[in-house]
Amino acid sequence: MKLRNRFVIVLFLLLDAVAVPAEPAKAEKKAPPTTAEVLAATKPSDWRPLDLDNTLYIELPSGRVVIELAPKFAPAHVANIEALVRQHYFDGLAILRSQDNYVVQWGDPNADDKEKARPVPEAQKSVPAEWSVALTKAIGFTALRDDRDGYAPEVGFAGGFPAAADPKSGQVWLAHCYGIVGVGRGDPPDTGSGAELYAVNGNAPRHLDRNTTVVGRVVSGMEQLSTQPRGTGALGFYEKDEHGATIRSIRVAAEVPVSERTDLEVMRTDTPAFRALVESRRNRRESWFRASAGYVSLCNVPIPVRPTPPAPKL
Amino acid sequence: MKLRNRFVIVLFLLLDAVAVPAEPAKAEKKAPPTTAEVLAATKPSDWRPLDLDNTLYIELPSGRVVIELAPKFAPAHVANIEALVRQHYFDGLAILRSQDNYVVQWGDPNADDKEKARPVPEAQKSVPAEWSVALTKAIGFTALRDDRDGYAPEVGFAGGFPAAADPKSGQVWLAHCYGIVGVGRGDPPDTGSGAELYAVNGNAPRHLDRNTTVVGRVVSGMEQLSTQPRGTGALGFYEKDEHGATIRSIRVAAEVPVSERTDLEVMRTDTPAFRALVESRRNRRESWFRASAGYVSLCNVPIPVRPTPPAPKL
Repeated sequence: MKLRNRFVIVLFLLLDAVAVPAEPAKAEKKAPPTTAEVLAATKPSDWRPLDLDNTLYIELPSGRVVIELAPKFAPAHVANIEALVRQHYFDGLAILRSQDNYVVQWGDPNADDKEKARPVPEAQKSVPAEWSVALTKAIGFTALRDDRDGYAPEVGFAGGFPAAADPKSGQVWLAHCYGIVGVGRGDPPDTGSGAELYAVNGNAPRHLDRNTTVVGRVVSGMEQLSTQPRGTGALGFYEKDEHGATIRSIRVAAEVPVSERTDLEVMRTDTPAFRALVESRRNRRESWFRASAGYVSLCNVPIPVRPTPPAPKL
Repeated sequence: MKLRNRFVIVLFLLLDAVAVPAEPAKAEKKAPPTTAEVLAATKPSDWRPLDLDNTLYIELPSGRVVIELAPKFAPAHVANIEALVRQHYFDGLAILRSQDNYVVQWGDPNADDKEKARPVPEAQKSVPAEWSVALTKAIGFTALRDDRDGYAPEVGFAGGFPAAADPKSGQVWLAHCYGIVGVGRGDPPDTGSGAELYAVNGNAPRHLDRNTTVVGRVVSGMEQLSTQPRGTGALGFYEKDEHGATIRSIRVAAEVPVSERTDLEVMRTDTPAFRALVESRRNRRESWFRASAGYVSLCNVPIPVRPTPPAPKL
């Protein structure tokens, strides 16, 4: 059906889209590759498995959300979130907020009620802000060429996350792109703990950069969060508890039985293959496109995720 | 509840947020105004009513979506869409596609089936592409100061829509920000008619600029579109017709009885008040923010919409 082919754009966060068969460029073709061709030509070494000790599964009534945590960028918060998860803190809590074109947020609906709030005996109630870290070699920041970003001197990728950097101050931080996960906080900077988290569900709110601690990004199941009915209260908070979906559980992937895991690989962002992918987004080669942008903004670069391919037979 | 005050950000597209009481800056305060203060200080002349002849109401089972059309940017497509609407073409058709972080699209599920496709006796089946128009004074383009946009030489606003311009080529076009509405088409540029439309539901896909005809933007009820369950087919198309919400009707607002209209005003984008609003987004003044971006991207500038205030008593 021709209709189904409109906007022939492979959105790589959709797992099935990654599986779309794509012909590699033939030798006689001189045209630069499309995104599908770049992906089809990747080698196993262009991908990395998720670190299961730093991967979370959120189980919602509608399905699973998989979050890759970023301990290099927020070590204390990631440790605290994992402590909360290990004591099953989140099980039975809820989505608290769903604001259109901004964020969806989850945690304890009674967090502000001293009598009803769920206790956190084995975790910190607040953690000092981790809004940026030192731009060391270990952080592995790769700048986007020709970035023209308004929010930071440099933007690019670090360890598979969208990031921004200021070489002058020597700092680097994760950028608020779609699906990024951050820590809710009150007015004072050090009031977040990871017990309340949010994910970006709309146009990249980059003005939040360096105003919250970013702890990771959704690598699968984002649609479970983005389609939550919008809250009717101020800022998209639900006015009645029954409107927010219940969190069945949050678990660290390594603690989930092997048969129940979601095996995913993330494309490495420091390879020639990834540079080719970025180039294929700067100038779209698919026949549908007529005007080439010659540019791609940080948050429009997909960081591909795919099911782990079966091991080759010996 | 303190929790409810986290992220104290007034999202102006949410009508209730506009009604949040805000204190205007006191005379003794020298600090530049917050967005809420800018809005509270607006005069009636900073707002304009919707042109009811160029406003559409989409009635979905979950509620109404209001779209402001942009006849200056796509006169032939807007005329064709209005012809389709006047013959009730869309009534009983459906949401066809909901792709996470990209677009939601609606039209005739049988458009490609010659026998089942709904006929369009009094409208064009295809309309020549209207991807940009001449940058004349009449178009009223106001550039964002300090825009640093990667996708176009200049960005700003035109008649209340986010727009981009190229003074060298003398062209201006509407920009693919969240909520923008465009015309679906096949591979050849002139295959769109307005019988199939989409709205942006994620991070601004600016690479679509000048690749499709943009006909307007959603000014109310975007959440009815953005929360549509994601289609499981390629590109977010629904694989089974029953998954797509049915369109009860689409009407031109002027043809709806007065008592059933949604009376809205849109903030003018060519006033000192709007410039102050943009400035309040460049550097957020709310106490919650600690790091100032000193910049706002085109698609992060809200174009405020509010219910029309009651007429003053004589």
